[in-house]
Amino acid sequence: MLLTPDAPSVLQQLDAFRAIVGSDYVSVDPEVLAHYASDETEDLHYLPDVVLKPRTAEEISAILKICNEHRILVTPRGGGTGLSGGALPHLGGVLLSTERMNSILEIDERNGQVTTEPGVITEVLQSAVRERGLFYPPDPSSRGTCFIGGNIAENSGGPKAVKYGVVKDYVLNLEVVLPTGDIIWTGANVLKNATGYNLTQLVVGSEGTLGIVTKIVLRLIPHPRYDLLMLVPFRSAEQACAAVSAVFQAGYTPSALEFMERDALEWVMRFVDDSIVPLEEGIAAHLLIEVDGNDPDVLMKELEGIAGIVQGFDCSENIFFAEDAQQKEQLWKLRRRVGEAVKANSIYKEEDTVVPRAELPVLLQGVKAIGSKYGFHSVCYGHAGDGNLHVNIIKGDLSDEAWNGSLKEGIREIFQLVKQLGGTISGEHGIGLVQKEYLPIVFDAVQLQLMRGIKRLFDPNNILNPGKIFDSE
Amino acid sequence: MLLTPDAPSVLQQLDAFRAIVGSDYVSVDPEVLAHYASDETEDLHYLPDVVLKPRTAEEISAILKICNEHRILVTPRGGGTGLSGGALPHLGGVLLSTERMNSILEIDERNGQVTTEPGVITEVLQSAVRERGLFYPPDPSSRGTCFIGGNIAENSGGPKAVKYGVVKDYVLNLEVVLPTGDIIWTGANVLKNATGYNLTQLVVGSEGTLGIVTKIVLRLIPHPRYDLLMLVPFRSAEQACAAVSAVFQAGYTPSALEFMERDALEWVMRFVDDSIVPLEEGIAAHLLIEVDGNDPDVLMKELEGIAGIVQGFDCSENIFFAEDAQQKEQLWKLRRRVGEAVKANSIYKEEDTVVPRAELPVLLQGVKAIGSKYGFHSVCYGHAGDGNLHVNIIKGDLSDEAWNGSLKEGIREIFQLVKQLGGTISGEHGIGLVQKEYLPIVFDAVQLQLMRGIKRLFDPNNILNPGKIFDSE
Repeated sequence: MLLTPDAPSVLQQLDAFRAIVGSDYVSVDPEVLAHYASDETEDLHYLPDVVLKPRTAEEISAILKICNEHRILVTPRGGGTGLSGGALPHLGGVLLSTERMNSILEIDERNGQVTTEPGVITEVLQSAVRERGLFYPPDPSSRGTCFIGGNIAENSGGPKAVKYGVVKDYVLNLEVVLPTGDIIWTGANVLKNATGYNLTQLVVGSEGTLGIVTKIVLRLIPHPRYDLLMLVPFRSAEQACAAVSAVFQAGYTPSALEFMERDALEWVMRFVDDSIVPLEEGIAAHLLIEVDGNDPDVLMKELEGIAGIVQGFDCSENIFFAEDAQQKEQLWKLRRRVGEAVKANSIYKEEDTVVPRAELPVLLQGVKAIGSKYGFHSVCYGHAGDGNLHVNIIKGDLSDEAWNGSLKEGIREIFQLVKQLGGTISGEHGIGLVQKEYLPIVFDAVQLQLMRGIKRLFDPNNILNPGKIFDSE
Repeated sequence: MLLTPDAPSVLQQLDAFRAIVGSDYVSVDPEVLAHYASDETEDLHYLPDVVLKPRTAEEISAILKICNEHRILVTPRGGGTGLSGGALPHLGGVLLSTERMNSILEIDERNGQVTTEPGVITEVLQSAVRERGLFYPPDPSSRGTCFIGGNIAENSGGPKAVKYGVVKDYVLNLEVVLPTGDIIWTGANVLKNATGYNLTQLVVGSEGTLGIVTKIVLRLIPHPRYDLLMLVPFRSAEQACAAVSAVFQAGYTPSALEFMERDALEWVMRFVDDSIVPLEEGIAAHLLIEVDGNDPDVLMKELEGIAGIVQGFDCSENIFFAEDAQQKEQLWKLRRRVGEAVKANSIYKEEDTVVPRAELPVLLQGVKAIGSKYGFHSVCYGHAGDGNLHVNIIKGDLSDEAWNGSLKEGIREIFQLVKQLGGTISGEHGIGLVQKEYLPIVFDAVQLQLMRGIKRLFDPNNILNPGKIFDSE
């Protein structure tokens, strides 16, 4: 199928779009188009032909019916914080923003559920349910600006995933507008479901290629009353990684277990101008470890137990225990803003590798060896408890030729290593536009054929976010 | 597509089948065929034409290639404990038993994972990982005889689901033989995965209609060190149901919260000849409540807190606390064997209703009212913490005419109520053969079209477990 955009065709439908969403929410203003040309992925820019901001599922349905009839391409967009280019309109067409669909529809305390529209900011949702004593754990570092709808699209994780799971573990039911304009619910508002194929889990993580999510029912859990946090410095980054699986093998389940290489912590402390912890000589990496629960004494015992274990892995004795809410917030801010700090430092490519957690030391060693071979520097950090390591490849002094050329071979080698270790090429960022060329490293022809078949089934004319995850045949 | 079985065609392939699996594992012996004609669903019997017992994925692949070429129907079977008729060869053809694929391949303590074949009995798997301090929580009541492969097919739950989730929450990766004979892995051995569509979750709960699962990678968690158990009698069954959501709203997450109507407990105590608890006059139902964790003092506080809450719901003061492992085992045995006790008592139909948990009292009241209207008696029990109520409709004195006729209208009304309450028609048993006529109550034409499309994509010739979940168009 040909994927050439058809700009005149799009522009012929402007009046029809205005009739659906109102003229205030149809824009071809170059400044507006430019605003929606990028997300947080590298330094990529692609202009859409028109930006639409519908308010309801019914409006989206009407838009998609027109686009499906006229083969107009549609790229859905949430908060625009994606790291794999899923919301980039790289083939032009309609950019459909869910920003006006930003109401929390119902917090159902009796059942521990929330029903929300997709354009609600993740942190806003978390705070709203927190006020009722409820907890929605998955929050990417971008939680202050990303949308819950985008989190569904990417099956996002975040630091709490290690104890509480990722987005897919909280989604009970979704209202979805299919590319044909049909509106469906994918499941039911229940904790257990053995009724037909799991359309809910098929849509979660499908990166806006199968439908546009317009309502979301999430399960919530009681919010834990207490948490404790410590930052542990290690003299060897590999030893820090090795400590991770030892913690779990000893029977502990921390509520966060984050890894940061020295560069990551150093850059972000400079970036946010906060040197809460001294960076000793000879320290190569840190683990940020949190425990949570309802009994402070039990938590203290757990944290001490974990501290005892990591001491077997060449860590410094200067473990930093956060003393109060402010210090916890400071440490978390450092971890959450590492990505921005790296971005501010240099052009970079971020690889979202994930392996079984005990393989982290092998992965880290491999990444560094591949970096030496191809001449690139990398800064690694991530959700070590999940085996999810963000490998940030720094452009630094690399020539444009190397950056756009041989570097890809290096990335390919990293992903081949990941595959060999039982892992895969994205843990929480998705494939989108920038990783799709590497997808055949982890999927063979049969698997890709099934996925393409599913895409065709939902989107026979290939109008919805085409060319994301994989190209159509 | 016509679904007529083609027995001569099957029998023509016997030599080919013998060449693949060995003659010991190809059977047309009437006694063997009769053994595989039933599962635990009602009193249904359907003879297959031949029973095959392959040992490997490669053998299954070779079998399916032949069957796909000759349009021979294949019904996969695990432990034969299913309650929706998913393993019944109701159209004849090949019955493919996974009973010889019964090895646990690897317990990976470093990563907290187990890789197993599908024919391993769930309790055997649980015990094997328990010896390493690890926990695989989902266990249906049939855990002593059901296979882990069947649990994957039905997305089984069990009593621990309320705290720990169901099968789908533990499956990381599956090796699957597709109906075409292709062998794929659905994902990767990782805790987080944002790489392509979630084929793993599509296969989980697909009731053996999309492929035959031949290897399973499950995540495991540290086994909790302690648990406490109590049985709470209530004077009103509806009040018992109402207490359930109050427990969660107070911030507690029990590791089990089971409901049993008086009849259920009375029948099972007689069935297993154990009257560990006296059944007082005027008691209408019981809740069996368990908490687990690593600190016995914390657990005792939790159990006392829960006991305090349920006392607001017209419960008797004679709460029974299990004093030791033997008493816990006795109570659990009663709960686990209720299904058998009901079956021994009368012909029955079991409906696996599930609703948001706070709707349980409304559901129970509705079931009883519908029973009065249609003249049937029901015995209800189930995983109340999940909102999952097993409604056992007792044939008793009902005429065959009513049993096979007007009763269906009653069941339909129950399912309509379930749907109206935000629930669905199966929480953990699946749709299989016996519930498929009710599927249009919860799915509209568009949803069914997507599901049928997925089936066609995986199984273009509709040879694998056809006529289960839904009929092909």
